[in-house]
Amino acid sequence: MEHKDIPDIVVGRLPLYLRTLQHMAQDGRLLTSSQELGERLGISAAQIRKDLSQFGEFGKQGTGYQIEFLIKKLREILHINQEWDLVVVGAGDIGSAVVRYRGFANRGFRVAMVFDSDPDKIGSQVGDFTVQDGSYMVEAIRAARVKVAMLAVPAAQAQEVANRLIEAGICAILNYAPISLNVPPGVFVQYIDPAIHLQRMTYYLV
Amino acid sequence: MEHKDIPDIVVGRLPLYLRTLQHMAQDGRLLTSSQELGERLGISAAQIRKDLSQFGEFGKQGTGYQIEFLIKKLREILHINQEWDLVVVGAGDIGSAVVRYRGFANRGFRVAMVFDSDPDKIGSQVGDFTVQDGSYMVEAIRAARVKVAMLAVPAAQAQEVANRLIEAGICAILNYAPISLNVPPGVFVQYIDPAIHLQRMTYYLV
Repeated sequence: MEHKDIPDIVVGRLPLYLRTLQHMAQDGRLLTSSQELGERLGISAAQIRKDLSQFGEFGKQGTGYQIEFLIKKLREILHINQEWDLVVVGAGDIGSAVVRYRGFANRGFRVAMVFDSDPDKIGSQVGDFTVQDGSYMVEAIRAARVKVAMLAVPAAQAQEVANRLIEAGICAILNYAPISLNVPPGVFVQYIDPAIHLQRMTYYLV
Repeated sequence: MEHKDIPDIVVGRLPLYLRTLQHMAQDGRLLTSSQELGERLGISAAQIRKDLSQFGEFGKQGTGYQIEFLIKKLREILHINQEWDLVVVGAGDIGSAVVRYRGFANRGFRVAMVFDSDPDKIGSQVGDFTVQDGSYMVEAIRAARVKVAMLAVPAAQAQEVANRLIEAGICAILNYAPISLNVPPGVFVQYIDPAIHLQRMTYYLV
């Protein structure tokens, strides 16, 4: 099933639904409703029903959604019914925190390799990983067929490193460097820049 | 000037425009156009013109935008023509990386205090800061009149800590815990959860 017509803003809400459902499942819950999901997420129940209905019939009028079933379906839709290997580039503060981050478990991802170009960092240990020499990054990523990268290098190096990642076959980059990347069609980029998020909130503060 | 009618999605793009303009200014540039901004950001020139026109007349047909002037205006609009103190709660891997993060400089924020509840962390040094005892957080935040917090505690504690932050007068929370927070009206929350961003991309991957 292809979903090419579905707006990215709808796609962007699916992981939030999934995360909330997984929290409910951890609490031993079996059923939920669009009302409850909406209250937890600050999204209207109607919006949630509309979003989910674009992908199929997941709930029943009156009984709501079976949590485990909806989790399974959302994992399929988001292609995380498999586990994706991640390459982390940059073993500074942020890269190291990402490598040690425990929040990927059961969410479709596992760190597979870590690179840096700093001779002081190459060979050092970060969590369960030995930092590898960035010079061999393209070959290593290609050989392991890794498709997803997290980029945690300084802004001045980010575009050049991104180019090499794409050359290596990476098609999804989560970019922690505070700079917009130019990437060819078919390569996806998401950004994590705390200042951007903070500025979006201070707009509303007096 | 109040902008209550402007959609949050438009507000969310302003920090991206500002970041790109600041990069241009660092490169010594004086003028830009909606076309160039659009190419750098993957947003249409028409969208950028439309977004900016909601806040005033910032460019001239034919000559484009004066970069420094537009930076100044965007900083005013986003209320970062002042510098906001930040409280960081949680001095684990992510909280520590945030405290040491150099990306806030010139973007409207500076870390002012760091708290943790772990006796092993209280009193330890993270970057230029001594980790303070979380038990005194509410009083300290109130006394310093800090309004913006970054929450980097485990998911299980996040809601309770958020409640205390709000009690202390915090009205904007950047939440690194992988959980949706319930907050009263007038309190703003943004989320940083790498798995959410990654899942939004794997949707598009085969």
